[in-house]
Parts: sequence; C-alpha cells; structure tokens
Amino acid sequence: MSPTGAIIALDAMGGDFGPSVVIPAAALALRERPTLTFIFYGDEKKIQPLLDDHPTLKGCSSIHHTDKVVASDVKPSVALRTGKDSSMRLAIEAVKTGQAGAIVSAGNTGALMAMAKLALRCLPGIERPALASVMPTKNGSCVVLDLGANILCDADILMQFAIMGAVYARNVRGIEKPTVALLNVGSEEMKGNDQVREAAAMIADLEHFPGVFRGFVEGNDISLGTVDVVVTDGFTGNIALKVTEGVASLMKQFMKEAFTSSPFAMLGMMLASGAMKRLKVRMDPRNYNGGMFLGLDGVCVKSHGGMDEIGFRSAILMAANLVEQGFNKGVAAELQQLAADQAAVPGMPPVENAEAS
Amino acid sequence: MSPTGAIIALDAMGGDFGPSVVIPAAALALRERPTLTFIFYGDEKKIQPLLDDHPTLKGCSSIHHTDKVVASDVKPSVALRTGKDSSMRLAIEAVKTGQAGAIVSAGNTGALMAMAKLALRCLPGIERPALASVMPTKNGSCVVLDLGANILCDADILMQFAIMGAVYARNVRGIEKPTVALLNVGSEEMKGNDQVREAAAMIADLEHFPGVFRGFVEGNDISLGTVDVVVTDGFTGNIALKVTEGVASLMKQFMKEAFTSSPFAMLGMMLASGAMKRLKVRMDPRNYNGGMFLGLDGVCVKSHGGMDEIGFRSAILMAANLVEQGFNKGVAAELQQLAADQAAVPGMPPVENAEAS
Repeated sequence: MSPTGAIIALDAMGGDFGPSVVIPAAALALRERPTLTFIFYGDEKKIQPLLDDHPTLKGCSSIHHTDKVVASDVKPSVALRTGKDSSMRLAIEAVKTGQAGAIVSAGNTGALMAMAKLALRCLPGIERPALASVMPTKNGSCVVLDLGANILCDADILMQFAIMGAVYARNVRGIEKPTVALLNVGSEEMKGNDQVREAAAMIADLEHFPGVFRGFVEGNDISLGTVDVVVTDGFTGNIALKVTEGVASLMKQFMKEAFTSSPFAMLGMMLASGAMKRLKVRMDPRNYNGGMFLGLDGVCVKSHGGMDEIGFRSAILMAANLVEQGFNKGVAAELQQLAADQAAVPGMPPVENAEAS
Repeated sequence: MSPTGAIIALDAMGGDFGPSVVIPAAALALRERPTLTFIFYGDEKKIQPLLDDHPTLKGCSSIHHTDKVVASDVKPSVALRTGKDSSMRLAIEAVKTGQAGAIVSAGNTGALMAMAKLALRCLPGIERPALASVMPTKNGSCVVLDLGANILCDADILMQFAIMGAVYARNVRGIEKPTVALLNVGSEEMKGNDQVREAAAMIADLEHFPGVFRGFVEGNDISLGTVDVVVTDGFTGNIALKVTEGVASLMKQFMKEAFTSSPFAMLGMMLASGAMKRLKVRMDPRNYNGGMFLGLDGVCVKSHGGMDEIGFRSAILMAANLVEQGFNKGVAAELQQLAADQAAVPGMPPVENAEAS
C-alpha cells in the first residue's frame, strides 16, 4: 500500500446494489487515483470474488468481514441500537480510530448520519452535521446543503449550515468571500416560512460571518449560480436535488428523441458526436454524485443509493479529495476561530456542549 | 366580438413587465385562438398605444381603466385591504360577475390568491385553493400542486389537494383513474415530516378517493412521470418548479456550448436544425407557463412574473382551455358528489362551511 494517498473505508453492503457496485466503483476510482487504498466492510464471501476480478484493486485493498447490514428502511434510532457490528458502523469506526481517512456509504442516509455523528462527533460549534453537495451551475458550481440529513431545521440550524457552507466554500473551494443565501419561495423579505425568515435575520446580524450573506434565492438560482452556497432544510434540499436529477434525465431523453427523429438529425449527430459525448458527461448526474456531511470531525461521504459504479466512483473521489486537501483540519480551525469570536451569538452552542452532544 | 370563444380578463399591470408583455401576449394568443376576446384592466394611457400596434387584437378587446396596481412585494392582507380598485382585483371581479370566463395575472401570487378566494370563493368541500401546473414528463405530463400559494400545509390541506388534483386529472385531462402521490424525501413510509405522513394515512383511509393513491414519490418522479398527480406544500412545490426551470435552462446552455464548440459540431447542428428547433420548443419553460388555482369557483390563472409574451401567451391559452372545457362545472360537480359521499370524512369540511370561509 502506498502511504501517500488517502485510505478509504467503504461500506460494501450499502445502497441498492451492495458489493456489485462498490467494488467495481473502487476499481474505477483507483484507475484515476492510483495512490488510493481501500478497506471494504461487509460480507467477505460476496466481496472476495468481486475483488478477484480486479487484481490491481485487490493489491491495495483489505476486507473487514461482517455479515451485519443496516437495512435501507430502518429508523436511525434503531440502526444506532442494533447496528453496532454493521458494515456501515465498522467503516465509520475506521475513520474514528484513524485507520481510514474517510468513509463512503450508499446506505440509509439517516442511519449513516446518526452513526457518524455518534462516532465522529460534530466539530466545535456545530450541533448537527449537514449533507452537502456540489451542483453544476451556469458559471461553475454551487454548494447546496442540507440535502436530506435534517428534515426539520429551525433557524439556529439553518444559520449553522450557512456558516458551515461558507467555511467549506472558503477552505475547500478557495473562494475568499463566498456568497451565501437561503433557499426560499421568493426573494422579497416577507416571503417564506418562519424558519427561513428568522434564519435570515440571524445571519444578517452575525458580526463575523465567513462569507457575504445575500438573503434569499429561489430554486432556479441554484442552476443560475447566483451564489456560491445555497442553504435549506433537508426536506426541501432533498427534493431540489432529486428534481434536478429528474429534469436532467428528462432533457437527455428529449435530446435523444430529437436527434433520432430524422435521417438529417442522425447525420448531424454523427458529425457532432465529439461535442455530444462531452455534453453527455456534463449532463450525467453520476458525475455529481456524492454528498459530504459537513460539520463532522471526520470525512464521511454519502453516495446515492441507486447509483451504479460510475456514480459511486464519484463519491469515492470526493472523499479522497476531502482527505487529501486536509478539509476537516481547515474547517475545524476556522470554526474554532469563529466560535471564539462569537461566543455570545445566540444559537451558536458553546464549544464544549457541541463536542459532547 | 365573437360569442363562441372565451372572454379573458387580463390584469395588464401584473408581472415584471406589465402591459408591454401582456398586450403582445394577448395578440399571440389570439393568433392561435381567433375566437378569444379580452378585457384589459390597467392604465389606459399605457395599454392604448400598445393595442394600437395590434389592430386585430384591438378589434376584440376593451380596456377597463384603473391606475391602481397591486405591488409585487405587498402582503396579501394589505392587498385585500388596499387593492379594491387595482387592476388585479377588477379583473377578478369580472369573473365573479360573469363578464369574463377567466382571469389571468402575472402579479403577486399571494395577493392574487387572497383576492380570488375572497371574490370567487372556494368550491364546495375545499378550504384553500391550490396553485397547480402541468409539468412535462418522460411519458407525457403530470399535474403538480401546490406551487406556492400555500406555504404551510397541514395534512388536511394536503389531502384536499390530492382530491382536487385527482378530480382535475379526471375532468380536464380525461384520465379515468389518475394515480396520485405525495412528494417526499423517500418512498419508505417512515420518511418525511409529520404532515406528509399524516396526509398519506388520511388519503389511504378515504373510501371514495377519485383516483389511485400511490403513497410517496421523490423529486425525480415528477420528470419520470411515475404518477399523474404530485401533491406537496407550496414551499416545496414552488422550489421544485423553480429548480425545474433552472435545470432546463442550464441544460440548454450546456447544449449550446457543446454544439458551438467545434466546426464539426456546428455543421452537425445545421443538419439537425429541424430536430433542434423542435427540441428547443419542448425544453422551453415558456411553453409550460401558467398555474391555475384549483378549488376556486371561477377560472384564475397565474403567469410567472418574469415571463415574456410567449410565456404569458401560454397562461392565456391555459385559461382559455379551462373555460372552454367547462373545467369548473365538471370539478364542482365531482367535488359535490364527493362531499356528499364523504360527509363523515375528517378534514373534509362540510359544504356549507367551505362556501362561507
């Protein structure tokens, strides 16, 4: 094993397809990042034969056997109680003990967050981790959080998400003064529900907000790239994410139908096949797959449960990037500074409490 | 004026562009439906010169002058109090008095709903109107409601929306047994917030639901066309709608960039220009513009505030279709039947109360 690359703990049993996607995905990720090493958590009898098909991957992987799995429909509280030896939990523990730099799972989102929160703890100043992802925009990309980890979010939590999003954009994406906004039904101040209005007032009152707060944006502003960070509750964020996937897929079908509708169109497509190929890659949701839990003291990435190996590969590469960029150290340092600055800000829990929560 | 077509009352002052979009839009709608007639409500000094540019439209239009306008950022309660002689309110009154068959406005959504509800009243059995629209899917189209008229919705209201959506799909779209689902973050029963879980239980318990209830769907199921009717609260629905617009626009830009990226691609595009043109029409959000308030005793259509004349034209044509198909009579009859059937169903207000609310 090469010591220079990230060590990734993979929950081999998570998602709709388990090892049959996770192992080929690791092989694909390794092809792009040969310094990576992997620990697969799950049923050895299922993992081993798949690894045998990928000799290069086999050479830089190990298996940690368990036959316990967190079911996709189990409640987080139940998963916490009963999932101690599950592939998901053991993979998370590897990050806690420092055996691995990151964990990637396509399993039950609620269970993953609950377990990761318990094992890895939140960074100082953070009450609840948020699931964040990077979505493509007209002028680049945009960080959106929360994408489904926290269904109900009060104003305090939304404010913390805004801070985390800004800190992430600054530390990982290198945007010195990231612009941040809350997702709402209208850009006028009076619109929306109580939580977003209160959160907007709270963020606007922050003295040391690590970005530029732009108030409210609407759903189309995500794709427009109006701001660098869009903050919302997990219910709305998850639906926004899934709608994005659905519409992209619909547009792809519309294109396919149009360009097979006549001999001229088909000939045109053949001529434009290079551009078409690049377009397909750009429109492919698998290349944007991977949500990271911001606010945890450790890198934990969630892959969409229904992704194939190309999609899961993106989640692995996201985790590798976060580890290799020293993401958590940077974020932790900035949050600590922020917490010290803002000891008196309502809604920001004191550092000690957050550590113990 | 021809007596065979619908008479449409137009709030000429609503939206970002007012008469400069509304009048050309009416002219476009008239070209497609020559039997339509229009009454424009708003500032005569601004409307008249624009009408002079469209002689055919002028021949089947009248102007009802007012210089009062409902501001786009005014609260619904304030609009109700102060907007009595506004272009929006007067246009709604025209439907109430039977002068017009439908009202179309691109103005303030909250004000439009509040005024329309007050003037037109809800259909028997309905507490609150919902803003509904038809969105394209892989296999046709899908009715989505609410799109922003009701930010907070409890389980009762979501249930009523499900009934209205089903009745609409049956009466206007001719689907005998429309499939209906609630928008949620996951299809497993335990997921989501209290309102959607309660609403799902209530709808499942209905004895005479005018469709087939399919439980929960996720954001991508809208575009997939998994069901005929998707029900959600106005906050989530509005964001889903705007995200759809944003992603469609992003995909269009990706395509444009791809097909101008090389001489081969450009040549290919020229050959495929017919298909490309059809694709553009299919992807153009302006062709899907227009939200109808379901549950009102009168046809009221909301156009997106930022739409140009092509988009506003779609909203006019939607209103014309609803009038000419006798939409409200059909829906009212079915709701009355349903209310009689379900007098004992919790959450369905008795017919008398709903009329008076």
